[in-house]
Amino acid sequence: MRSPHLDLTADVVSLTRALVDTPSESGAEAALADAVEGALRALPHLVVDRVGDSVVARTGLGRPERVVLAGHLDTVPAAGNLPARLDGERVYGLGACDMKGGVAVALRIAAGVPRPSRDLTFVFYACEEVESDRNGLRRILAERPGLVADAGLAILMEPSGAGVEAGCQGILTADVVVRGERAHTARAWQGINAAHKAAPVLRRLDEHRAERVVVDGLEYREGLSAVAVRAGVAGNVVPDECVVTVDYRFAPSRSEAQAEAYVRGLFAGYEVRVTEVVPGAAPCLDRVGGLVDALGGRPRPKLGWTDVARFAALGVPALNYGPGDPTLAHTAGEYVPVAHLRACEERLRRWLA
Amino acid sequence: MRSPHLDLTADVVSLTRALVDTPSESGAEAALADAVEGALRALPHLVVDRVGDSVVARTGLGRPERVVLAGHLDTVPAAGNLPARLDGERVYGLGACDMKGGVAVALRIAAGVPRPSRDLTFVFYACEEVESDRNGLRRILAERPGLVADAGLAILMEPSGAGVEAGCQGILTADVVVRGERAHTARAWQGINAAHKAAPVLRRLDEHRAERVVVDGLEYREGLSAVAVRAGVAGNVVPDECVVTVDYRFAPSRSEAQAEAYVRGLFAGYEVRVTEVVPGAAPCLDRVGGLVDALGGRPRPKLGWTDVARFAALGVPALNYGPGDPTLAHTAGEYVPVAHLRACEERLRRWLA
Repeated sequence: MRSPHLDLTADVVSLTRALVDTPSESGAEAALADAVEGALRALPHLVVDRVGDSVVARTGLGRPERVVLAGHLDTVPAAGNLPARLDGERVYGLGACDMKGGVAVALRIAAGVPRPSRDLTFVFYACEEVESDRNGLRRILAERPGLVADAGLAILMEPSGAGVEAGCQGILTADVVVRGERAHTARAWQGINAAHKAAPVLRRLDEHRAERVVVDGLEYREGLSAVAVRAGVAGNVVPDECVVTVDYRFAPSRSEAQAEAYVRGLFAGYEVRVTEVVPGAAPCLDRVGGLVDALGGRPRPKLGWTDVARFAALGVPALNYGPGDPTLAHTAGEYVPVAHLRACEERLRRWLA
Repeated sequence: MRSPHLDLTADVVSLTRALVDTPSESGAEAALADAVEGALRALPHLVVDRVGDSVVARTGLGRPERVVLAGHLDTVPAAGNLPARLDGERVYGLGACDMKGGVAVALRIAAGVPRPSRDLTFVFYACEEVESDRNGLRRILAERPGLVADAGLAILMEPSGAGVEAGCQGILTADVVVRGERAHTARAWQGINAAHKAAPVLRRLDEHRAERVVVDGLEYREGLSAVAVRAGVAGNVVPDECVVTVDYRFAPSRSEAQAEAYVRGLFAGYEVRVTEVVPGAAPCLDRVGGLVDALGGRPRPKLGWTDVARFAALGVPALNYGPGDPTLAHTAGEYVPVAHLRACEERLRRWLA
């Protein structure tokens, strides 16, 4: 599609609507990236780079501190929720909540605060909603780390109810494998039914009470869930394998190795194949405390995994701060409250004045 | 393929080899059916009918009793086990055990016993190894029931170790459905994990001790097996449904309704969807006792389901009697012992003399 013109001087509500009305499902962000790049290149105080369909824009004021404002350009697939629609005090439409509202706020800051009190690095990136390999922020950090790594702090504009959600939990995924022996079901006693033998694994999950871990005064409530169970060879065969896939959300105070040891310990006696571990991000309130105060309100722990963990891995403390209720993300009825848009823009402006 | 000539005067071993060497995977029995039909039409004491790729041949001697000798012509797909091979005292090859050896014995009787003491109905049928809808015997019973229903007794030449395996167990298949509520795994406590809640279903299966039911002095050992477990929505979603598919092999003394009530009782409190029930077949030793004596040895219970149940449903008592070890059926290394072939032919000849 032709790249539309984005007017960054327009009100944050109009800008959010314009962003929603430029579809950018993961993998198809080119038109929106073109529009964002064009609008940012028109601003003389920014140096703009492009990496794939991600755009980075930096001030160069020589401030002692540099802060990243980051948001992803992509959305999940449309669900009959286009074009954008303003209904009372809400902007509805695909990505309004996750996270074009946040991108609009960041673009307003880029255009409207040409001499911020901290140097700013804006990152608008592609493919956040899909597998990690395609993630645009990951690609920037891999190919052009210098564009981002010199920051002392990062604000990820993920929907956070216009409040600060600090850090994020880690994720471990593992297959717990229960083995048996095949047999014809007409002579079931000649085999060992792996599905039957999986009962203790599921019972352990059912009885498991996730820990609540306090880090920097924030309570990270963990979770351990079977997300899949698979057994079955044929309709007349006693299955010789049952695989229970578990998803463990762990507090950012645990390392990947600790998370793995925890899961292996829970399922001692079973084969446990860890398929993925991604670390969380500590809230680092000692390093981001001033910002949290400026953005107002008590910080909450972020329970879902977000790209703040990529900044944390880089040594850059990061927090989630953006308009919209995170539980509305990916729903057909997602919206962003106008009040959130205005509050986020206003508080960031004040902090950067 | 061109239909070969079958020489029914040849030795039962040669005939078995010739049958194996005429491939007849389910759905592709035409060439073998043509050969069998041709060979039987050459026998003046038989009246031959064809239904699809199944062949029925009847004597018409006016005997007070009529007996069916039945065998299926089809095999499972080849597994590198063609052509037939005589190795010592065994005939190896696709279908040698299940059940071209049995078909060879029946064909030898058809050709070699022109004036049997009972009227005979030979049924050589297609598509036994595939879904019931395609079963050739089922089709004959549906389209031309008169060809079979006037018999007082049926012998199904399924591999039975050259002994009598009486009756067969029934099969009930059901889905036990455990329900929960979806949630994001980052907030797992907001949902109800259906996989976790399936633990008691699997435990009940694991602790279940199948009954041993004695019918006519034969012990039918039942079985209750999970043959599949399925749960899973996405890698970050608490699943809202877990389905455990159970396979219940029940003694022929139980009706379909009793079998269903038994399974529903075991999983009381869960949604149970019965997807299929096929009744078993009672051994009917009071009605087939003389034949059992003639065929020698103590009858054993048949644990797998066979087409004897179709005869039973018709009111015709039936038993399994054929050469070959049933546990070798469908294996690449299947074979039939020459001693079984000769014993079966010899005992049937004697009984029909």
